[in-house]
Amino acid sequence: MAAVGRTTWVIAEGWIPPSGIEGSRALESHETACMLNAGDAEAHVCITLYFANRDPVGPYRLTIAPRRTLHLRFNDLRDPAPVPRGTDYASVIESDVPIVVQHTRLDSRDPAIALLSTVAFPAV
Amino acid sequence: MAAVGRTTWVIAEGWIPPSGIEGSRALESHETACMLNAGDAEAHVCITLYFANRDPVGPYRLTIAPRRTLHLRFNDLRDPAPVPRGTDYASVIESDVPIVVQHTRLDSRDPAIALLSTVAFPAV
Amino acid sequence: MAAVGRTTWVIAEGWIPPSGIEGSRALESHETACMLNAGDAEAHVCITLYFANRDPVGPYRLTIAPRRTLHLRFNDLRDPAPVPRGTDYASVIESDVPIVVQHTRLDSRDPAIALLSTVAFPAV
Amino acid sequence: MAAVGRTTWVIAEGWIPPSGIEGSRALESHETACMLNAGDAEAHVCITLYFANRDPVGPYRLTIAPRRTLHLRFNDLRDPAPVPRGTDYASVIESDVPIVVQHTRLDSRDPAIALLSTVAFPAV
Repeated sequence: MAAVGRTTWVIAEGWIPPSGIEGSRALESHETACMLNAGDAEAHVCITLYFANRDPVGPYRLTIAPRRTLHLRFNDLRDPAPVPRGTDYASVIESDVPIVVQHTRLDSRDPAIALLSTVAFPAV
Repeated sequence: MAAVGRTTWVIAEGWIPPSGIEGSRALESHETACMLNAGDAEAHVCITLYFANRDPVGPYRLTIAPRRTLHLRFNDLRDPAPVPRGTDYASVIESDVPIVVQHTRLDSRDPAIALLSTVAFPAV
Repeated sequence: MAAVGRTTWVIAEGWIPPSGIEGSRALESHETACMLNAGDAEAHVCITLYFANRDPVGPYRLTIAPRRTLHLRFNDLRDPAPVPRGTDYASVIESDVPIVVQHTRLDSRDPAIALLSTVAFPAV
Repeated sequence: MAAVGRTTWVIAEGWIPPSGIEGSRALESHETACMLNAGDAEAHVCITLYFANRDPVGPYRLTIAPRRTLHLRFNDLRDPAPVPRGTDYASVIESDVPIVVQHTRLDSRDPAIALLSTVAFPAV
């Protein structure tokens, strides 16, 4: 399979609910960047986070093996800094090979869960 | 980082629920245009609102600083007029530099919350 | 404002929940095609519905005035035939001038409501 | 009607909830690829599934008749293998004629249902 997708993706919405169901990774409030690297080469990915009132944070670096998907939780980012909860942010995701990115949030504050998802914006 | 995105975006869906959870900004019913200005220049943004049975209202003017995101609640628009609740509308968002726009609604009428989100339509 | 958008849009998902909250137009289960005609000319729109196991139905014809939005509920379509509930369908929306289309469903079977939305696919 | 759409689509998000409402096909947790073949020729479709930690699985082969929509549940895929529940995956959907693909999930774990939907990414 040839590589499919684009090399720069934008998620303008970003907000990790500050609370929710506890004790279940599947049901805790989270945001995810679902990335597919359908090609035959490793994808080297850089994520930069943008905020409302302070300078961007990043790059967060990660690798996606060939022919693999990585559903990355923003909750799990640690280096260079964790993503603050209950805070507006946005992200730019850059890869050296084409990938596809889809954004999903599970909000379990209610505690009835709510979901949103959209393919990210393919900028380049 | 170079500017990414487009200069005209459209959100054809718009409807702020007329009720919902009270007393919590995070949980009250709202609609948001999440905008990212990843570039090095200020973004000067004009929003025009369209309705079913009356003339458009606008422009609403706002500025997004370089390398910042603005998650604008339509609920917060005041000038030239607030956005009526429980009323069908649509919006065109124009910027003098490229930005990315994503549309989100939180509906807390239930009171179990519901969410929707989509990247807006990049018209130009 | 110049016309913005495209002239052919596709919503591949379509399913009106067969039940839900009764007695409230705002809360009953429904699907909507939110359309914006931001231009200065009337938009003459034709909708064709596609099904899993029978021939397409249409055209449904409607007009959107200049500088107006129309949030059309598929539930409200009557001519040439109502949209069956609880039935998989898809729709192609064609206009003689550029418009923008966004698809939304409110599902109130639960009776906690659930929402989905996406910009439709701009085919032409 | 001429064929509309594209021939390669990507859904980077994929996750079938491992539980939910039982005994109702309409309300059980599921993921769907809603596909529209608006053209006059049969669409021969191949789906390949990608995972986080193992090789892709596929192709899953199916046919969509002319002028028909197929709302395919990933839950129903059997050959060459069922889709594991509670497991991150992604999908690439290839057709020999243009189609349109939209992705939807219904999550009924709660048991208040949650929904997400987005038009898939049109790669080619």
